Amino acid sequence: MAAKFISERNLKFLLYEVLDAESLTGFEYYQEHNCKMFDMVLKAAVKLAKDLLWPVFAEMDRNQPELANGEVQVHPSVRAIMKQFGEGGWITSRVPIDLGGEQLPHLIADACDYIFQAANYSATAYLGLTVGAAHLIESFGSQMLYDTYVPSMYAGLWQGTMALTEPEAGSSLSDITTMAEPTEEGYYLLKGQKIFISAGDHNGVDNIVHLMLAKIVGAPPGVKGISLFVVPKKRVGPDGRLVPNDVATSGVYHKLGYRGCPIVQLSLGDKNDCRGWLVGTPHSGLKYMFQMMNSARVGVGLGATSMATAAYYAALEYAKTRRQGRKVSQKDPKRPPVPIIEHADVKRMLLFQRAVVEGSLSLLMQCSKYLDLQLVLNSEEKEKYNLLLEILTPVAKTYPSEMGIIAISQGLQCLGGSGYCDDYPLEQYFRDSRIHPIHEGTTGIQAMDLLGRKVLLQNGRALSLYGEELQATITAAEKFAELREFARQLRAALTELQAVTQHLLSIAQQKGPEVFLADATLYLEFFGIITIAWQWLRQGIAVQKAGPHAAAKADRNFYQGKMFTLRYFFGYELPRTMGLAQRLMNNDGLTVEMQTAFFND
Amino acid sequence: MAAKFISERNLKFLLYEVLDAESLTGFEYYQEHNCKMFDMVLKAAVKLAKDLLWPVFAEMDRNQPELANGEVQVHPSVRAIMKQFGEGGWITSRVPIDLGGEQLPHLIADACDYIFQAANYSATAYLGLTVGAAHLIESFGSQMLYDTYVPSMYAGLWQGTMALTEPEAGSSLSDITTMAEPTEEGYYLLKGQKIFISAGDHNGVDNIVHLMLAKIVGAPPGVKGISLFVVPKKRVGPDGRLVPNDVATSGVYHKLGYRGCPIVQLSLGDKNDCRGWLVGTPHSGLKYMFQMMNSARVGVGLGATSMATAAYYAALEYAKTRRQGRKVSQKDPKRPPVPIIEHADVKRMLLFQRAVVEGSLSLLMQCSKYLDLQLVLNSEEKEKYNLLLEILTPVAKTYPSEMGIIAISQGLQCLGGSGYCDDYPLEQYFRDSRIHPIHEGTTGIQAMDLLGRKVLLQNGRALSLYGEELQATITAAEKFAELREFARQLRAALTELQAVTQHLLSIAQQKGPEVFLADATLYLEFFGIITIAWQWLRQGIAVQKAGPHAAAKADRNFYQGKMFTLRYFFGYELPRTMGLAQRLMNNDGLTVEMQTAFFND
Repeated sequence: MAAKFISERNLKFLLYEVLDAESLTGFEYYQEHNCKMFDMVLKAAVKLAKDLLWPVFAEMDRNQPELANGEVQVHPSVRAIMKQFGEGGWITSRVPIDLGGEQLPHLIADACDYIFQAANYSATAYLGLTVGAAHLIESFGSQMLYDTYVPSMYAGLWQGTMALTEPEAGSSLSDITTMAEPTEEGYYLLKGQKIFISAGDHNGVDNIVHLMLAKIVGAPPGVKGISLFVVPKKRVGPDGRLVPNDVATSGVYHKLGYRGCPIVQLSLGDKNDCRGWLVGTPHSGLKYMFQMMNSARVGVGLGATSMATAAYYAALEYAKTRRQGRKVSQKDPKRPPVPIIEHADVKRMLLFQRAVVEGSLSLLMQCSKYLDLQLVLNSEEKEKYNLLLEILTPVAKTYPSEMGIIAISQGLQCLGGSGYCDDYPLEQYFRDSRIHPIHEGTTGIQAMDLLGRKVLLQNGRALSLYGEELQATITAAEKFAELREFARQLRAALTELQAVTQHLLSIAQQKGPEVFLADATLYLEFFGIITIAWQWLRQGIAVQKAGPHAAAKADRNFYQGKMFTLRYFFGYELPRTMGLAQRLMNNDGLTVEMQTAFFND
Repeated sequence: MAAKFISERNLKFLLYEVLDAESLTGFEYYQEHNCKMFDMVLKAAVKLAKDLLWPVFAEMDRNQPELANGEVQVHPSVRAIMKQFGEGGWITSRVPIDLGGEQLPHLIADACDYIFQAANYSATAYLGLTVGAAHLIESFGSQMLYDTYVPSMYAGLWQGTMALTEPEAGSSLSDITTMAEPTEEGYYLLKGQKIFISAGDHNGVDNIVHLMLAKIVGAPPGVKGISLFVVPKKRVGPDGRLVPNDVATSGVYHKLGYRGCPIVQLSLGDKNDCRGWLVGTPHSGLKYMFQMMNSARVGVGLGATSMATAAYYAALEYAKTRRQGRKVSQKDPKRPPVPIIEHADVKRMLLFQRAVVEGSLSLLMQCSKYLDLQLVLNSEEKEKYNLLLEILTPVAKTYPSEMGIIAISQGLQCLGGSGYCDDYPLEQYFRDSRIHPIHEGTTGIQAMDLLGRKVLLQNGRALSLYGEELQATITAAEKFAELREFARQLRAALTELQAVTQHLLSIAQQKGPEVFLADATLYLEFFGIITIAWQWLRQGIAVQKAGPHAAAKADRNFYQGKMFTLRYFFGYELPRTMGLAQRLMNNDGLTVEMQTAFFND
């Protein structure tokens, strides 16, 4: 298993040289840690990924989950993975020491997740969902719920899920119809259908703990009537043993990719015996769920980045070893063929992948650090980082998801016909990655969230803070001659972003919400490109600080590669904002006025 | 099988209203035909597609070809399809009446292929390869070769292939090593390996006829030493019976998609008994093969358009029937959910698909008509259409291939989670379509062909002719008030294309071929967008001529839809040329100077 799926060098560059991970250990909450320990954690994560996850990456895809005897049968390694991650403390890496966790900074824990996801995304879905669901109970549930469920989840013995979607309620959660009827015993009786539930049932654990949205009988309509429940597959009976809780698995989907993890349909309360326990107060379910959802959204961005990373290294390896053709300036057929990485067009495809992958990872690690700062700082500064996370979440979810697919597609292209065949992993990455613009809120939903909510948040304060962050980077970059031109370009892009935003806000006034939001998806794309340009400039600053002093040849090559990729992003990707800005400034209402009948023929 | 996979209304709009198919019947060669007959042919093609091809579209994917007992086993319907298409005259639709064919205009025959490919692309690959291979023998082979092979191919009993690629020679055909040794009996003895041969072996026919590139012993190096041979799987023995010809199938690929058609590895002459017959003269093989290759490239563009068409109609159907959420201006949860087609973002995704699909189809039908004109006109005009086809071939192959994938991906996105599951066909289209930027010359190869060869052809004459065609459309469009603004935009884009091209030609002089061709792929993308804008303007003219007089509501809706889609293309897609032009004018040699070592870390 010699295949490379991430770069430790790049990860450490981001953590230490760009983001100064060490600074976190200056805060009391993280004072037990130091960089040496971070390095050991990362090293252990790489080893675990190589030993446990990567070897079954293709195998879990080839043997997709099937429903048999009322239970979803998954690859046998799932049980081993859950158990080893539980025992190794990887499920509790972010949990406070007081609660038995490792209290690792999110920055480091997320870097480990990146490593795991790059090795085998499907396998990590089981873990991520369990982490999120347990955290939700920990944050908002009663002590009884915590004691009953969380220890087994943290041990990797029980699976957590987020159970939101229903046949008639996907993007529109306000339409969920799963009902919860209160009983005198304190629990609720649930009845309804859930679909598209990741890891919603499988034989790799002893129990499944659904964090489920439902409406209490008589609740107000819409999202204001949604409550959150813990609904286990098996509940703890009077004698302490697990008994069935009337949660039936009615189907398992056959999917394009992401086949190592089942997505299932659930039927609740067919026998009127499905018990659920309310989390927090009634009708506050969506608010609670959004803690898990926001983290899941950033997690999707990280997963998308991970897959694109692994695909990039697979393509790079192929391009270095596969010989084909000659340089266009040396076409003599008697010369030996060159490794295809020497063709400019192949280098362009690899630079594109690297620009997307390392730009996305930089943004995601930035978000992780904001999360840490939000956790450890006092209230005013906490709010600042909270707002930055609010505005960056749809971007951090969507840019890697959308661009990751294109990056993987370019990776596949580097392999030509071999990329289309399953002798190489590219075709699997291409299939696996297509889930990301869909799950945890589609790209369209993220776009409405960004333009329709986040940009307007607190009178535009989140957007102002975002602008200040970019401005700080621009100012810092201007000190380096090699970065001045890129700083200028980012400043121009930021100015354009502000102009486009102001324009759209005036359109909202003049033409109402339909026209205002019609091109929200393009706005998100526009915003995303500028955000990644910012991250590349941040990386450029770190390179300029360290690069000139680098003694080792390998370091000099690494920094040179960073600068070429930065130039690539500004030269090839940032110009895409021009066409987007032109369209965003044109609010002719085309897609609003288009009528269904005009699609007929 | 009620599913819609193409629009007959749109096809007829292009054939009759945009391209005046009837005018072809004014030429002697096509005088036997008339529009009524064309309509009958199209109707028969739709029926055949619905009855024979569409019902096994998913089934052929789910049961992919496997190698057993030395032969590739394909879905049983392949034999029926080959036979019915042979008997129905569909393999010979373009063949002259004198040779037993239908002598249909390419415009009509290609329109039928579009219908077939939309119903089941994999199934049509068997047919298209047979048509191309037989045509190659017909054009350049001896009477003996014609008599021995072509009738059985035209009858759908024998499969034709194009056998070019080898393990060490994919994009670089100059490196093929399959050797052909002359014998005194007139045939050659072949020895070598071929890979990625579509329909290269299967049990759906009685024999396979490879049109194969190989080098005669002692041939000059490079492409100048390549010859073309007919190499059958079974040769005709002295008694007239078929005997094995020492062509062994050494493997079948497991692919991302396009699974209804096998791609195989062949081993030739393991027993020193693989006989091949030279086509035409020695060392002219690549020239001959390019007749089939050029037609195959345009065919790939048509196939890509077909798949994207079928995906568009599947997404449209879903969007019309699936209810979810409310309009952003009417968010009251007590209102019933709306069909998702009423959301502006969904309309945007559908308009994008339609803009790509109908724009691509318009270009491909345009190419078909050029081919017809080239066939029937006198030599000077013939040369004009030949040159237009030369310059448009890489565009007609690549634009639909690259954009088709994105269109299909947007179609999948319209279905949300359902798009990711195999209950709907979108996931299959997404997998199937990924082959198009690879086979018959990758996008990178097409780009070098366009900028490095076609633009330079006859001192830029092909490009001038292309410019004249666009100019004629612009002039015609300016007569309509509704089109004037789009005519202006296309004129500006054409001017930009000419400026970028001139700039790149000067770069070729100053900096040499490496820098000149470094961004050829971007140039092809740039060229492609402008070409499709031209096609939309051509459609706009037809709409403006017919639309105002349309009496039927359905026609008025159709023309309205066309105008919205035209506006979409000019409003959302054409602006993408801005960023591309900016990059193309920047020849800093980034991807030339990037070094392999800088990719290390």
